[in-house]
Amino acid sequence: MQAFEGFTNAELVSRKQELVNRYEDYKKRNLKLDMSRGKPCTEQLELTNDMYDNVSPFLSEDGTDCRNYGILDGLKETKVLFSELFGVNTDEIFIGGNSSLNLMYDLIAKAYNHGLNGFEKPWSKVEGIKFLCPCPGYDRHFSITELFGISMIIVPMNNDGPDMEMIEELVKNDETIKGMWAIPMYSNPTGISFSDDVVRRLARMETKAKDFTIIWDNAYALHHLYDEQDSILSIIDECKKAGNPDRVYMFGSTSKVTFPGSGIAFMASSKNNIDYMKKLISIQTIGFDKINMLIHTRFLKNADNVKEHMKKHAAIIRPKFEAVNDILEKNLSGKGIASWNKPKGGYFISLDVLDGCAKRTVELSKEAGVTLTSAGATFPKGIDPNDRNIRIAPTYPPLSELKTAIEILSICVELAALEKIL
Amino acid sequence: MQAFEGFTNAELVSRKQELVNRYEDYKKRNLKLDMSRGKPCTEQLELTNDMYDNVSPFLSEDGTDCRNYGILDGLKETKVLFSELFGVNTDEIFIGGNSSLNLMYDLIAKAYNHGLNGFEKPWSKVEGIKFLCPCPGYDRHFSITELFGISMIIVPMNNDGPDMEMIEELVKNDETIKGMWAIPMYSNPTGISFSDDVVRRLARMETKAKDFTIIWDNAYALHHLYDEQDSILSIIDECKKAGNPDRVYMFGSTSKVTFPGSGIAFMASSKNNIDYMKKLISIQTIGFDKINMLIHTRFLKNADNVKEHMKKHAAIIRPKFEAVNDILEKNLSGKGIASWNKPKGGYFISLDVLDGCAKRTVELSKEAGVTLTSAGATFPKGIDPNDRNIRIAPTYPPLSELKTAIEILSICVELAALEKIL
Repeated sequence: MQAFEGFTNAELVSRKQELVNRYEDYKKRNLKLDMSRGKPCTEQLELTNDMYDNVSPFLSEDGTDCRNYGILDGLKETKVLFSELFGVNTDEIFIGGNSSLNLMYDLIAKAYNHGLNGFEKPWSKVEGIKFLCPCPGYDRHFSITELFGISMIIVPMNNDGPDMEMIEELVKNDETIKGMWAIPMYSNPTGISFSDDVVRRLARMETKAKDFTIIWDNAYALHHLYDEQDSILSIIDECKKAGNPDRVYMFGSTSKVTFPGSGIAFMASSKNNIDYMKKLISIQTIGFDKINMLIHTRFLKNADNVKEHMKKHAAIIRPKFEAVNDILEKNLSGKGIASWNKPKGGYFISLDVLDGCAKRTVELSKEAGVTLTSAGATFPKGIDPNDRNIRIAPTYPPLSELKTAIEILSICVELAALEKIL
Repeated sequence: MQAFEGFTNAELVSRKQELVNRYEDYKKRNLKLDMSRGKPCTEQLELTNDMYDNVSPFLSEDGTDCRNYGILDGLKETKVLFSELFGVNTDEIFIGGNSSLNLMYDLIAKAYNHGLNGFEKPWSKVEGIKFLCPCPGYDRHFSITELFGISMIIVPMNNDGPDMEMIEELVKNDETIKGMWAIPMYSNPTGISFSDDVVRRLARMETKAKDFTIIWDNAYALHHLYDEQDSILSIIDECKKAGNPDRVYMFGSTSKVTFPGSGIAFMASSKNNIDYMKKLISIQTIGFDKINMLIHTRFLKNADNVKEHMKKHAAIIRPKFEAVNDILEKNLSGKGIASWNKPKGGYFISLDVLDGCAKRTVELSKEAGVTLTSAGATFPKGIDPNDRNIRIAPTYPPLSELKTAIEILSICVELAALEKIL
């Protein structure tokens, strides 16, 4: 529908005045509400407070003293846990550090410096390399490719994942397209999960670059909001079946399961790829924090226990997601100026406003004390070609603050649209 | 003196037979003694067992909830602790991860990919770059430079540090020499600490490469064995005074203070350098493990407390260093076939055997069940041009095992020498 279809000009002018009045009232309250980052709230953090109660004895199940040097790729029991959770074999997994982002950065840095498994030519020696960036997407992904001077090609996100026809056409013909970013489950920020067809086509497609690499950021695989859950095919299995076993690296962490910044992260891929990475990583470090792996594994126990733990997270944040939806629905539906998703998991709600109005909406919100993720952040270099997408991160603020913030945001969405139209 | 000066050939033949007999006796015992790596022993690890007893509350001194995202460069109180211990300002320090080796790797990777602070030309775009490697040195340093294809120039270690005349001459004239490795205090493996004169000359020297970088691996700064201690000048201060504030990056960690692999590591440099690195690291990760910083800082408290803690380490490992010296002295002194240092700190004893005999000595030891660091490991690419140096790591084995291992090693040193001479 058209924006404000069926309203007369006079009605819109009067509506605008009404909104300006409400907006000014909010401004006077000197609010400071931050919804810019996908951080768990305090109640979620409390769920993990007991984790450090069972540190001693410091021995892993096979008797390794976790207080000393040794073991590059992670404790056995930690690999078993992640292999259960993510459906990979234990020899296809590497446990490393506290940050999956850092592991992704490192993969690209190693591809750039040394080349990937089986390929002698590092990406730094190839002119004009490119990455596919499904958008809206995750700003920190795009910052990494930008830092390495990799050109970024925007691929639209559909309801079942990235536009596969566009991807297949591009990668078949261009040897300099070396890889793509993907958040396959409850994607940041769209909440979309890739369909089986999309996963299979990514695994099977013909790529001109033999070292084409999919960075499969499975950040929200465990983060369901409801009993009715999305599920995705195992890309690692599909790549094996398609004869492209080395095409994909999967990443994940416990950042939003236990404690962000103090969790454990992993990388999974073909055994060949993991063996190659281990050789390179053995030059970089003697090993990662095994005590943290030990306490995590004791606390999380097994896949079933993790599922129960994640249900507690969901119980805390589900009302926040629903409040955002309810308020947006109440204030913005039927006006033709905004659309948003209603995700079944993940950490974000993606809001599309009237074209050309995202920046202004975020600016208006900021002036009224509501900090949102910058408009454009969900696109490479922070430039949304339609200036349309806004990422809402509802988990961190208390519910009452969140509701106020979304009331204000709704006003700003409509005000920005009216400013444009009138 | 000459090897076996004053002995007749017949005496040496008979001595050799005696040693072979003793060697064969040891072999029959099927020993398995590992002295290859500088690992703390179990008694040392016990000193830190209490560290996890005070995790809750998870708040840093300024009220930051360490369970959530936030803070790229480390907790304030952790920076204060390290700034006390290493004589730098808190804005000259970055706390990151569990491994100083990883931070050093990362510095070189960033110089290689993006260039250093103020220099637009990354090292990857310069042909034939080189690093100075004081030798004997640390194998893992050399592996990093080798991985990045950086040529390594061996610089001899004297009793007061690396040969400064050679270094000054080289760096003044060669723009492709981009940096050097240094372990300035109780060096690995020589145990030498750099003299004030050496530190000042490194800070002041004229370098053709404007981005010449000293990697100051201060791994053993806190690791004294005796009350009478070495001390070194602050290279960061000296570089400031000399007008070369951006020349040096210092590294260290608590790996051999608390728990190897589960400690915290830091990097220190000029504020400008640290600010630049922070910008790059902000692309790589959201932040490092703050809970680990919190418990470390609560456990270690302050510089005085760390000193007391390190005295407990010294009390455990000092008898091991002395046992090695005593046994080598008893078996090898006066024969002209071996020399070794008697360090006042650090983790290693450096043993020089007769030229051309190090590999054979290590091989003989191995066959008798004593695993040493590979001969050559203390030189780039594992090639000791004189095949002379052996690194002894006395801390890990129990004292009785260590004594047996050094008895065997002594036999092997002498046997290898006799094999060569006879």
